[in-house]
Amino acid sequence: MKRDFISVEQLSVEEIYKVMNLAEYYRLEDIHLNNGYFVANLFFEPSTRTKMSFVVAERRLGLEVLDFHAEASSVLKGESLYDTAKTFEAIGANMLVIRHEADDWYEELQNKLSIPIINAGAGKQEHPTQCMLDLLTIYQEFHTFEGLKICIVGDIRHSRVARSNANALKRLGADVSLCAAPGFEDASLDFPYMTIDEAADKCNVLMLLRIQHERHEYQSETTNYLEQYGLTKCRERRMKPNAIIMHPAPINRNVEIDTDLVECERSRIFKQMNNGVYIRMATMMYLFKEWGMTNESLTNKWQTFATI
Amino acid sequence: MKRDFISVEQLSVEEIYKVMNLAEYYRLEDIHLNNGYFVANLFFEPSTRTKMSFVVAERRLGLEVLDFHAEASSVLKGESLYDTAKTFEAIGANMLVIRHEADDWYEELQNKLSIPIINAGAGKQEHPTQCMLDLLTIYQEFHTFEGLKICIVGDIRHSRVARSNANALKRLGADVSLCAAPGFEDASLDFPYMTIDEAADKCNVLMLLRIQHERHEYQSETTNYLEQYGLTKCRERRMKPNAIIMHPAPINRNVEIDTDLVECERSRIFKQMNNGVYIRMATMMYLFKEWGMTNESLTNKWQTFATI
Amino acid sequence: MKRDFISVEQLSVEEIYKVMNLAEYYRLEDIHLNNGYFVANLFFEPSTRTKMSFVVAERRLGLEVLDFHAEASSVLKGESLYDTAKTFEAIGANMLVIRHEADDWYEELQNKLSIPIINAGAGKQEHPTQCMLDLLTIYQEFHTFEGLKICIVGDIRHSRVARSNANALKRLGADVSLCAAPGFEDASLDFPYMTIDEAADKCNVLMLLRIQHERHEYQSETTNYLEQYGLTKCRERRMKPNAIIMHPAPINRNVEIDTDLVECERSRIFKQMNNGVYIRMATMMYLFKEWGMTNESLTNKWQTFATI
Repeated sequence: MKRDFISVEQLSVEEIYKVMNLAEYYRLEDIHLNNGYFVANLFFEPSTRTKMSFVVAERRLGLEVLDFHAEASSVLKGESLYDTAKTFEAIGANMLVIRHEADDWYEELQNKLSIPIINAGAGKQEHPTQCMLDLLTIYQEFHTFEGLKICIVGDIRHSRVARSNANALKRLGADVSLCAAPGFEDASLDFPYMTIDEAADKCNVLMLLRIQHERHEYQSETTNYLEQYGLTKCRERRMKPNAIIMHPAPINRNVEIDTDLVECERSRIFKQMNNGVYIRMATMMYLFKEWGMTNESLTNKWQTFATI
Repeated sequence: MKRDFISVEQLSVEEIYKVMNLAEYYRLEDIHLNNGYFVANLFFEPSTRTKMSFVVAERRLGLEVLDFHAEASSVLKGESLYDTAKTFEAIGANMLVIRHEADDWYEELQNKLSIPIINAGAGKQEHPTQCMLDLLTIYQEFHTFEGLKICIVGDIRHSRVARSNANALKRLGADVSLCAAPGFEDASLDFPYMTIDEAADKCNVLMLLRIQHERHEYQSETTNYLEQYGLTKCRERRMKPNAIIMHPAPINRNVEIDTDLVECERSRIFKQMNNGVYIRMATMMYLFKEWGMTNESLTNKWQTFATI
Repeated sequence: MKRDFISVEQLSVEEIYKVMNLAEYYRLEDIHLNNGYFVANLFFEPSTRTKMSFVVAERRLGLEVLDFHAEASSVLKGESLYDTAKTFEAIGANMLVIRHEADDWYEELQNKLSIPIINAGAGKQEHPTQCMLDLLTIYQEFHTFEGLKICIVGDIRHSRVARSNANALKRLGADVSLCAAPGFEDASLDFPYMTIDEAADKCNVLMLLRIQHERHEYQSETTNYLEQYGLTKCRERRMKPNAIIMHPAPINRNVEIDTDLVECERSRIFKQMNNGVYIRMATMMYLFKEWGMTNESLTNKWQTFATI
């Protein structure tokens, strides 16, 4: 079946492990496809980490990169995402990596292109490669998801990471809860809420989210946000011995987290970024395989590669 | 002779066929120059298709790409096109691809650089690689230009494609006419006008043009533009059996053309984009050859390559 | 010792000659590292020449380039330089090239990263690769610095080139003086001032600086600036037989220099740009060597390469 990669929901538990496996394999060994494939990165929203780690992943795979700048493109002349995507298909792109502010941008592209699409961020809805790299980071630490107490903390409502992560972690066996300041809850997510103090006391993983100022309809009162809802040094000291801190970044220092904790021993924030490169390599190769776009020898390598 | 590629006017009919031939050759076989050449793409106006298809063409030829962003460059400090071009020459660019809003930008560069220049769009005047890809698209369809009835439809006055195409097609033997809403005519072009209904009835090729909102001094009344002057589904049904629809894109859907016709059977719109990659490869190689910048074996390949 | 390259001050006179030597070596012979290194170019201020010549230098060395666009990045979400730099380190950059408007941007990065940093422009303070390419340009001309009369002319106060160049040239044995319109002097630089007429009469090298309009708190009276303080054709005729004219560009034509002199026989302005590519190749390789990031054979090549 030829699927795009739009949501982690579409991967079975077995496939999630396969992609994580593949990511670990690419950490050890680069694969240069050398087949002249072009990947177009179509980012309609600002990005540093996601875009740049896709570029690193693409170049490590030997792919040619088409770097689209919406702000200097025909989008200024009113061209739609659909026409932009079709254009890149027409000029020879072999894969599209798309970030767009619309929650449902994928709908107009579904089944309309002859090349695979990877979702690099869809409005407030989905950010599946971020979810996958988060999963990998947790798995590297605990070698299981079963029974892990994980709390997703912060602006649940406006985050495109919260939903994917909560659902995927639950499927993998984790005990997921949420923690949000008033107004940041999301009623559509069926997980228990706890306070930040409870979360600090009880959890193996604190997944902090960014306060999405730029995505808010109203401006939250951030005065004392850190003290009331964020991860202070005091709360960090109450965390379990091997508990870890995660954050997808960019971080609002001293809002979601005390600035001194960003690089503390428990923090896996920069590890997450590093994992992102390998997860993106794996995701792209997984799609190429599904679309019959890689040769047999690479496919074999995957099959013989052991579980993590 | 060392020429830049500024206008299709400067190519003889024989040379037009040669470049089209070369484009078809590159569709079948990539040539990697592997000589460390750098091409600088200097786009001072927004572009998706033209810029990105130049990048694909450049990378397929094994060229290094210098991606200039006017909006983050010394142009902000008042640096002129001339000084920008000389800078790229000084740092080692082996070719410049330039799009600029001035009709006559080329004049200040003429005979001032030691490297070839390709015009990727000059104000309202010229867009020769677009013209060449349009010619190739027509030739692929009909295998001749002799006696073909071709109507260029739309904003003739503000288009940089209309002029090049009309003149080139005439030289190649086509029977060219124009069709424009009031105010979109161009008195400097000596071709007969017809209505959109006549064009739909009689022509083998309808070359639609974009309504260049961003280039207008006055804003046209676009209400009912489609019904009055555009290609409706009704008009499409009246077209000749093998007649085709072309458009340089970006398209204003439901203005120049009914949105449902963009990917209809007659449409060659995405084929045009695809041809653009090979035409640009051919144009660059043709210039490199003329400037003595390619080795003999590649030159020989051209000579032995058959006519289309 | 593992140093970043932030200021020419940190290089000994011997090291300055070593880097110039290396630059001349790379002019003759490219070295492709082929080790999959990534260099991230983080430009927070507009640049054509510096950024693009770094790109040429990087590609000539076979390095992968990460092209960061502050205006389409998480900087828009408030991400700091520090967090941006750490992000690039985390995703696999092997070197950072940074230009930033803050004079002291380096302070927050010092000793915080595991990869080398090159300063590509720090506010009004330093621009060491520009300084190095200026030194190389002078050395190519006179094969010594000893006793050369060199005047740095223009907006001394707001230039990040003046300080580095004056100090470095003095250390190399040159006889350095300054020339500035009222308000453009810099009291912190301990060099004698002369008039533009004296400079034209006496000097071997006139290093013109750009009037940094965009960096001024007040707008200077530029009417007749050329006549009063700039290099007119009349003054050029009074220069010594082999004296040369330099300018880091972008040039304000007919402000710092008569437009007709930009490409006159004495001008080394475009030569400077060309030298910039090789100086940047040399600087990067010098740092890679110091950080133990190149293999032995390349190191040996340096040791056996003769002095200029």
